[in-house]
Amino acid sequence: MANPVVPSSGVLTPLGLDAVRLDPGFWGDLRTLDQDVIIGHCLEWMDKLGWIGNFRGEPRRGREFSDSEAYKLLEAMAWAGDPRFDELAATVVAAQEPDGYLNTRWSGDRYRDFEWGHELYCAGHLIQAGVARWRTAGEHPLTDAVRLAADHVCRRFMEGHEVCGHPEIEMALVELYRLTGTERYLEMARRFVERRGRPALADIELGRAYFQDEVPVRRARGFGGHAVRAMYLACGAVDVAVETGDAELLAAIEAQWEHTVARRVHLTGGMGSRHTGESFGEDFELPPDRAYAETCAGIGSVMLAHRLLLATGRSRYADLAERTLYNLVAASPALDGRSFFYANPLQVRTPGRSTEDVSPRAQSALRAPWFWVSCCPTNLARTFASLPAYLATATPGGIQIHHPTACEISHDGLTVRVETRYPWSGAVSVRVVEAPADPRHISLRLPPWAAGALEARETPRGALNDTVSRHPDGLTPVRRGQALVFGERVWTPGEVIGIELPMEPRWVRPDPRVDAVRGCAAVERGPVVYCAESPGDEAVLAEVVVDPSRPPVERAADNALREGAAHGDPAQDGPLQDGSPQDGAAQDGSPQDGAAQDGAARNAPARDGAVQLEVRALRRPEGQTGPPHGEADDTPREEELTLRLVPYHRWGNHGPATMRVWLPTG
Amino acid sequence: MANPVVPSSGVLTPLGLDAVRLDPGFWGDLRTLDQDVIIGHCLEWMDKLGWIGNFRGEPRRGREFSDSEAYKLLEAMAWAGDPRFDELAATVVAAQEPDGYLNTRWSGDRYRDFEWGHELYCAGHLIQAGVARWRTAGEHPLTDAVRLAADHVCRRFMEGHEVCGHPEIEMALVELYRLTGTERYLEMARRFVERRGRPALADIELGRAYFQDEVPVRRARGFGGHAVRAMYLACGAVDVAVETGDAELLAAIEAQWEHTVARRVHLTGGMGSRHTGESFGEDFELPPDRAYAETCAGIGSVMLAHRLLLATGRSRYADLAERTLYNLVAASPALDGRSFFYANPLQVRTPGRSTEDVSPRAQSALRAPWFWVSCCPTNLARTFASLPAYLATATPGGIQIHHPTACEISHDGLTVRVETRYPWSGAVSVRVVEAPADPRHISLRLPPWAAGALEARETPRGALNDTVSRHPDGLTPVRRGQALVFGERVWTPGEVIGIELPMEPRWVRPDPRVDAVRGCAAVERGPVVYCAESPGDEAVLAEVVVDPSRPPVERAADNALREGAAHGDPAQDGPLQDGSPQDGAAQDGSPQDGAAQDGAARNAPARDGAVQLEVRALRRPEGQTGPPHGEADDTPREEELTLRLVPYHRWGNHGPATMRVWLPTG
Repeated sequence: MANPVVPSSGVLTPLGLDAVRLDPGFWGDLRTLDQDVIIGHCLEWMDKLGWIGNFRGEPRRGREFSDSEAYKLLEAMAWAGDPRFDELAATVVAAQEPDGYLNTRWSGDRYRDFEWGHELYCAGHLIQAGVARWRTAGEHPLTDAVRLAADHVCRRFMEGHEVCGHPEIEMALVELYRLTGTERYLEMARRFVERRGRPALADIELGRAYFQDEVPVRRARGFGGHAVRAMYLACGAVDVAVETGDAELLAAIEAQWEHTVARRVHLTGGMGSRHTGESFGEDFELPPDRAYAETCAGIGSVMLAHRLLLATGRSRYADLAERTLYNLVAASPALDGRSFFYANPLQVRTPGRSTEDVSPRAQSALRAPWFWVSCCPTNLARTFASLPAYLATATPGGIQIHHPTACEISHDGLTVRVETRYPWSGAVSVRVVEAPADPRHISLRLPPWAAGALEARETPRGALNDTVSRHPDGLTPVRRGQALVFGERVWTPGEVIGIELPMEPRWVRPDPRVDAVRGCAAVERGPVVYCAESPGDEAVLAEVVVDPSRPPVERAADNALREGAAHGDPAQDGPLQDGSPQDGAAQDGSPQDGAAQDGAARNAPARDGAVQLEVRALRRPEGQTGPPHGEADDTPREEELTLRLVPYHRWGNHGPATMRVWLPTG
Repeated sequence: MANPVVPSSGVLTPLGLDAVRLDPGFWGDLRTLDQDVIIGHCLEWMDKLGWIGNFRGEPRRGREFSDSEAYKLLEAMAWAGDPRFDELAATVVAAQEPDGYLNTRWSGDRYRDFEWGHELYCAGHLIQAGVARWRTAGEHPLTDAVRLAADHVCRRFMEGHEVCGHPEIEMALVELYRLTGTERYLEMARRFVERRGRPALADIELGRAYFQDEVPVRRARGFGGHAVRAMYLACGAVDVAVETGDAELLAAIEAQWEHTVARRVHLTGGMGSRHTGESFGEDFELPPDRAYAETCAGIGSVMLAHRLLLATGRSRYADLAERTLYNLVAASPALDGRSFFYANPLQVRTPGRSTEDVSPRAQSALRAPWFWVSCCPTNLARTFASLPAYLATATPGGIQIHHPTACEISHDGLTVRVETRYPWSGAVSVRVVEAPADPRHISLRLPPWAAGALEARETPRGALNDTVSRHPDGLTPVRRGQALVFGERVWTPGEVIGIELPMEPRWVRPDPRVDAVRGCAAVERGPVVYCAESPGDEAVLAEVVVDPSRPPVERAADNALREGAAHGDPAQDGPLQDGSPQDGAAQDGSPQDGAAQDGAARNAPARDGAVQLEVRALRRPEGQTGPPHGEADDTPREEELTLRLVPYHRWGNHGPATMRVWLPTG
């Protein structure tokens, strides 16, 4: 099956890329952008910087883990069916040593630095690339190389207590086991998971918690340390737990996930509160400005949620995946697919500087085309290419749609076409194209915000169903937990079922223990988190105060956009509708490269029809010039205005800007 | 003159260690602790770790800048008149190469890494140690070595464009110029200052802003980058400006100071908001939990404020020095002088782990006896040893007391004894011991919080003077700017003047642009910032809400303490007076090492008579278990209680604890 994760057991069965085919729409457009732009963009940069040349024995360039970028790109090409796969794969395979070892940085000096060497991390990505190829188009010289590499790892590491400073090999080996049935791959993965935290690695300045080596995996209370490492390790642990039937280990990861989601995840789904160590912070340490929320950690969180969803069937995992996909993974690439956020803060006070070169830093407030540590672009490339695999699942009784988006889903004789402009519209219809003779169900996940809104109406069950069902002949779904289930019944081709999710914009408030956003509120609409963006202007967003007793409303001017197709994005207008002097200044001060980026945005195929919102706000004048603390807070508030809000995932596409998700309420 | 800073011109003249002699009291006790404990503690650790052995050619140990710790300790010994100076100095001098170069890390491989090598930084500290010796006890083999080293630096660097990644050499060379009159030292310092930001150093991952090499010194808008580097560079720039008569450069640093103090300084005077790069953040980025506020940056800020005060006479520099001395510099050492904070956050959510070993990390929430990078303990040692030099100044017409503390001050025939229990009491009396025949003034700085409180009484000038004057025969001071000036007049030995500063505890509020402490307030009393501390208990401080409309009050139980001498510290009671279950649990759960530390605190000679405060607060139960954001914030609030507040500089002396300075108000 053409899916990155194919467990041998679990409550839900994944569907392959052949079973879920995206149509134009939010995610279909992003996958097209990936195939048309992002994959090629990554290949060009790696070629230019010599990271491909490393495999040809050219003078070594790039960081010690740069090989892994080539592997992630190979994985992306495999999922996308990209014709450039063969050439890149051949280059990689030619660099493998006879015993299976393959690393352009450490060849001849193997396994001297488990803390920072990333050799097993790279091997893991190589294996995942081979698995992707095998599952999409069968065996290949790369798949031979991958088995050779995995056998080398097993020979070298089956005994002893060594692990890699960066988890990744664990889930790769389990997936290769799932594909080949070779038991030693699973056993090797199990040992890597179990060795951690005994401890297996040296203490470092950042502490062993950085690479999850402070306590054994099953004894951790929540996720901590380097967020990408934490997510990847948890993925491997779930995979091992599922394949070995280790219910205790699975329960441990579930508990860690619950603990973390309640305390350490940003509103966008972003994970990681500290630039130092690219790490989770403490419980409730969720600063919007210094949120690291690395793109790769978001991808890792989606990978983990998918594994936990398959294993348990609990829709709360899909809930977090949805939050993360729309507000973090989708936020990273520019609309034109040629630059990327590495860190994804929820507040930017100082407009970033644009760069057309390699960014040495992750904390840029503007997207960059490439990074010295460039894990994120290739990770996005493989994620978008394999995205259909994450959207729906099956059971013997039917199919489950976790993330509604325009697509066609086929499984075991039942083919349906999902038609929706979600997340901009709440209307989701499912048309039966082909149906088997036996009864099936079709279920749609009910997101928690939708369930809450529906329940808040305090209507009887029938009325609830009236609200959510648009089935023409009166078929109403049954609510089972957090899903609306149509059927089980025998379907007839041409039948259409539908729901209408409530898309009223809503204010959300932080837990009072989140100190960093006390006295603030944010706006969501459907699964989308909104932000205020102020292109080219530092001051405005430091001075606004919103009133959450007045609900956000959709901008009238956007109604046409929701129905339309490709269109210009008016975000360069600045956040204020009322023409305050600073607003005018912001427009006049927009730099030229901002305008150029905007031109690209106008033609961007992805994510059309974005709904913009507005809220009434007060603007207070800039405060005192003395110390930033004093005996009184009697700053007068002046000037009521309208603050425009844009989807967070679209911010930063119009040149340097300030931005904030959490808006002060007083 | 026995003072670290002796400018050839300026509005105020410094007084040497021979002119200001500390009596027992807040700062006198700390200087005694330094002489009795801290200096020896540093020597023991450096000996044990081989950092002294490096000078004897033993296998190299420690970080590339560890030589500087020996130099800072030599400087401390010189100011303190410590008899161990000669032996350590001889060890250092013996390691100097014939041409004057002295560095145990880079000998034979000189000047290859200006970004990180710290060679000129170390040379600067060597020079400062020599200056301290020269000014306290005359020439010495070390002072010869220092001249040789400075000459080497001038030969090697007078031409070209190289600078050190860590500023320090600049102020050292100016001070050596001031001592010797050798012009080339000043010229070398001037060139080092001017070369920066052209740029002079390589771009690094942290950016050139890290070492103040992004823009020329006189063109920066405020202080940024690594906070210690920023402070040291600004010190050197002021020194160069004063000695070369460069009014533009002095004005630039003054403007940068104003910009920074209004936007980038924590309530404690702490500088640095980011662990990454140990750096300033952006304007208004002042997170209490991740405040770095390195001890050395606080020391650097006091050094800079002192230089600016001498140059301009503006008391606002002494205001910040006072805030920083009482709430950052005094907070770093434990009451027993055997462990130290490196970072000084304003909130600790998770109790730290105590260590009796070298701490590899700066961000410990518990003091550590030593660090891998151990700049802070020796910096404290030299600062406490030279502290009298920072307290008072002179002009031809009299003396100015900037920081009241028990001491005797002699200058040009006028000797006065300052008697006060400040900062615990606001009463400050100055007794004339010896007086010249010509008229003099005696002025006392009026801190801004005192000026504000006095002005808030809206009394006529006469009443103001009645309030502040305790002179027995009715002598009233004149207010000149931010000082109360007694005289000019001819004094008679035995005369006593006095003021009573208003010491009512007060709430302070953050600037609304400081996002991280929105909806919070803090308590100050006199110059002292207070905090709530919860030994051994994680939860309490996450759950309290205070009401700033109710003024904080002094704890009745402390009245006796204010008048008394040595006494036990009751802080181990926990922050709550009302015996809630968690409060009891906190007491029972106190770890043994906490109790041991407490024992040390009971006998600590420093900082006796601390006033504790209390405020009424609400405690709300622990919140939801779902995601840390949602549609409503309707957590019920329960249980009124009394929250005890202790001086921030005393926190963490009773074992692992949570702590917060900024308290939520709703």
